[in-house]
Amino acid sequence: MLPVDLPGTVRDALLAPLVDHHCHGVRRDDLSRAQFELLSGEGGGPAPPGTTHFDTPFGAAVRRWCAPLLDLEPHAPPAVYLARRAELGAAEVNRRLLAGSGVVAFLVDASHEELEVLTAAEMGRHGGAAADELVRIERIERDVAATAELAVDYLDNLGEELTAKAARAVGLKTVIGALCGLDFDPARPSRGAVIAAANRRLADPKEPLTDHVLLRYLLWSAVDVARERGLPVQFHTGFGGPVHHGAGGPAGEPHRADPARLSAFAAALQPLGVPVILLHCYPFHRQAAHLAGIFPHVYVDVGLAPPHGTAAAARVMDELLELAPFHKQLFSSGCRGLAETGYLGALTYRRALAGALQARIAAGEWSTSDAARIAHMIGSGNARRIYRL
Amino acid sequence: MLPVDLPGTVRDALLAPLVDHHCHGVRRDDLSRAQFELLSGEGGGPAPPGTTHFDTPFGAAVRRWCAPLLDLEPHAPPAVYLARRAELGAAEVNRRLLAGSGVVAFLVDASHEELEVLTAAEMGRHGGAAADELVRIERIERDVAATAELAVDYLDNLGEELTAKAARAVGLKTVIGALCGLDFDPARPSRGAVIAAANRRLADPKEPLTDHVLLRYLLWSAVDVARERGLPVQFHTGFGGPVHHGAGGPAGEPHRADPARLSAFAAALQPLGVPVILLHCYPFHRQAAHLAGIFPHVYVDVGLAPPHGTAAAARVMDELLELAPFHKQLFSSGCRGLAETGYLGALTYRRALAGALQARIAAGEWSTSDAARIAHMIGSGNARRIYRL
Amino acid sequence: MLPVDLPGTVRDALLAPLVDHHCHGVRRDDLSRAQFELLSGEGGGPAPPGTTHFDTPFGAAVRRWCAPLLDLEPHAPPAVYLARRAELGAAEVNRRLLAGSGVVAFLVDASHEELEVLTAAEMGRHGGAAADELVRIERIERDVAATAELAVDYLDNLGEELTAKAARAVGLKTVIGALCGLDFDPARPSRGAVIAAANRRLADPKEPLTDHVLLRYLLWSAVDVARERGLPVQFHTGFGGPVHHGAGGPAGEPHRADPARLSAFAAALQPLGVPVILLHCYPFHRQAAHLAGIFPHVYVDVGLAPPHGTAAAARVMDELLELAPFHKQLFSSGCRGLAETGYLGALTYRRALAGALQARIAAGEWSTSDAARIAHMIGSGNARRIYRL
Repeated sequence: MLPVDLPGTVRDALLAPLVDHHCHGVRRDDLSRAQFELLSGEGGGPAPPGTTHFDTPFGAAVRRWCAPLLDLEPHAPPAVYLARRAELGAAEVNRRLLAGSGVVAFLVDASHEELEVLTAAEMGRHGGAAADELVRIERIERDVAATAELAVDYLDNLGEELTAKAARAVGLKTVIGALCGLDFDPARPSRGAVIAAANRRLADPKEPLTDHVLLRYLLWSAVDVARERGLPVQFHTGFGGPVHHGAGGPAGEPHRADPARLSAFAAALQPLGVPVILLHCYPFHRQAAHLAGIFPHVYVDVGLAPPHGTAAAARVMDELLELAPFHKQLFSSGCRGLAETGYLGALTYRRALAGALQARIAAGEWSTSDAARIAHMIGSGNARRIYRL
Repeated sequence: MLPVDLPGTVRDALLAPLVDHHCHGVRRDDLSRAQFELLSGEGGGPAPPGTTHFDTPFGAAVRRWCAPLLDLEPHAPPAVYLARRAELGAAEVNRRLLAGSGVVAFLVDASHEELEVLTAAEMGRHGGAAADELVRIERIERDVAATAELAVDYLDNLGEELTAKAARAVGLKTVIGALCGLDFDPARPSRGAVIAAANRRLADPKEPLTDHVLLRYLLWSAVDVARERGLPVQFHTGFGGPVHHGAGGPAGEPHRADPARLSAFAAALQPLGVPVILLHCYPFHRQAAHLAGIFPHVYVDVGLAPPHGTAAAARVMDELLELAPFHKQLFSSGCRGLAETGYLGALTYRRALAGALQARIAAGEWSTSDAARIAHMIGSGNARRIYRL
Repeated sequence: MLPVDLPGTVRDALLAPLVDHHCHGVRRDDLSRAQFELLSGEGGGPAPPGTTHFDTPFGAAVRRWCAPLLDLEPHAPPAVYLARRAELGAAEVNRRLLAGSGVVAFLVDASHEELEVLTAAEMGRHGGAAADELVRIERIERDVAATAELAVDYLDNLGEELTAKAARAVGLKTVIGALCGLDFDPARPSRGAVIAAANRRLADPKEPLTDHVLLRYLLWSAVDVARERGLPVQFHTGFGGPVHHGAGGPAGEPHRADPARLSAFAAALQPLGVPVILLHCYPFHRQAAHLAGIFPHVYVDVGLAPPHGTAAAARVMDELLELAPFHKQLFSSGCRGLAETGYLGALTYRRALAGALQARIAAGEWSTSDAARIAHMIGSGNARRIYRL
């Protein structure tokens, strides 16, 4: 799995258990080919007639790397892979893939309440790992909007629910970038504007929240809670946000998911000491690395990019390493729905980082002991420090 | 030309005839050094005093790769190259370079009416290939504006001309990105706004069209025709558009040529089933690959980037392969004016893809048979399916 | 330092003395660890508790490459490095690092008047090189604003000071991108608007200038002077500007530092023949290369990116070489505060370009003599021509 000529200490550091600081639950039920394809495609829809989502970098990686865990030859044809997957059953497949990822702790965005999706605790059990929860704040808002009758109740409940949920979580998470772009007005909205917006909201509480005033109010409320409890706030950035989450908002403006556009808001959080975690970031990971370099409280990972770009993951990781401080990088799989993403996330992360470290060692740029130390920091050390695990 | 240790089936697939799904006619006349330089520079102007457009990646590639087809040593000096070019004559040079590109079908934007430029049929004859036409819609508008006297005639004629031209074409093409940016209002403009804009237009019909309402009307009219006839619509995106086409509009805003900004319009076309083809894309090809991944009807190529960045084309191709589904990628040379671009387009595409495939095979990521199949899809299979060749 | 199998003529061309066409003075005083860290971090602040700015690509490069010049082993621990640095004293360290960079001429933005910073002349003496000055126009404005009492005096003095300072400089420099973004209105502001803005300015002359009208007026005044004296104008672009300069303005909008956004202004300068030099550019260097390709008067370098991304500098350099004409690229270290940046700037530039050239020679893309010629052009030839050294 790793290059054979990697020094032993670096290899050990890369193979050490990882903290997957951002993932979602995977499906517990057996999946038809159509379901598997839907979950593996980026757009959430079926492939065009005559084509298949297996003909993607991600599909090629599933056949290459996941097939052996299902006792198949590498590059097994899609039909063979899916037949074997069905034969083993979802529970066994999930156990093999999640345990095979070598993760010691999953931090799970458990905002998906479908019964078919594993809970955070189940993710931990299947993977032989610890599990903690992340609170997706837009989900909290949805629940509060569904029950509140008056604007003032809505706002009170929002604060109470955020506080209550945060009490048993290790971090908060927002998808505001998918809902109104990351270049939203960084100022706290005024009380008057918030009340007016809340009244509008309660007139139509079943729609996903898209009002910018309320989105900003919700985020600032989350920041207050995070500050009080010493929790970080994760931001979905780069590609993957709007689509994977089926959210409304500026799905037509992926350029506004550039984390550089979050810079003013990040600056506003600096005096509060609330860590800002930039998730995914691709293809804006160089921009994210820059923010992690200039702001002491900003952290970065490339999440879903390595498992989706598998064979090219080394370059993405390498581009992140151009500028990002070593104590500011994290690992996550961004796993969702398919346990394959979790396994590929860990595998491609390790292979990509191995390639980057090996190249630097071979060029005489980094020492072996530094390389091992850096692998440890990114793989688990930084996450343990930031999330206080 | 290709790496020696490439497996035979992959080599065969790479050397198989290509469909060049987007090019322009090349010049039939003998060119002076000044003319050759003007056509080879990106900006359309001469090189600064004391310098030459041969001192570019493209110029180096011409000397390296085209010289041997003219019976010269690789790296022939510019003066030697141009002298030999003149000696052989344009017709012979065009035949050697176009036939040498190994293209089985040219899809030609034949909107340039200058007598010095080969027609689509002539491109095919010189290259020993089939040839089909692409309809550049802004060109149709120019002709209609020049003759119509009343707004209502202008609009009627526009529709009729689009329909007539589309009847013998395999696709439509727009350069709207060069004229008003790709983040134009995706909605169909209202009839009233269109009539008013058409009246303004007819008061000054000789200027290039820059009115956003009419540009959007023209594009929607083209979409209607494309839908009816089952044709794709090509969009110029990324660098190269405004300059190569000498168009007006936001030449000062190349960041607005990012295909991510076309996302809302692409979403609007999804229910209509009209294929959207993103041309060139560089340096936003990762953004384009993302769109091709999330939208079932969006396709992508990197056109002019490989011939212009020759020695670095492998990385550009590799970055495209990070995310783009294999059934969504196409080959084009973007060739224009100089047959050298056509030859280099095919050559650098083959070399770049060879490098990407070889690296993945060597790393055990892709199987040899998958690699061969992918080369076939991108080189001709996808184009045959989409353009119904 | 350079790959052993590089052809001799290419090696000689790479090792030939460089013109560092953009740097700042380095500190003359002995630095505490806290001071060294502050100067080496990108954000200008200390590293978060429990971490160190040495855990960055730049810190790793200092330990790897600068340690031997201080008689230490490569990869010396930070404490050892800093102890040796203190032992030798700043003057000796500066001499070793600046002389070790193999620079024949420094062009120095000497706008920092702190006594602890070497002047342009001192930079030259320490480095055994010639030295010339660059005029930072926003600094001129600061001095003029501090003394003028009437708007008309302010405007007169601005023109006089620019002319006077330019008379003994080799170029002008602006950080307007850090103060209001590079997509400012490219038109010359009207006299009335300028007078009104000047009156506002004089009511609060100690603040950094952020008024867009005056920033544009200042820039156009500088362009007039540059045109008259045949001087180029340098623009800070990409990352590094706002932060390194502690400037006000859109620090929260790093995406507006994309040089593509300067395109309309660059087009406005084309008829005037004033060279536009894009500094740094990272991570928008492909965009900058495009502008250098289409505009005869636009030039580009990647400044601070190689020393900060050391081990990955080859890719950044390679991406610049995808599109930029060879006669349009320049070398600069962007050095500031720490002589380490100057040394690493030259070293990583040479190593990165060596890697790019070697790869192209090995692939048969460029001839050895072309590679040597290109190294000479980028390393010093282009700068000598443009700055008339």
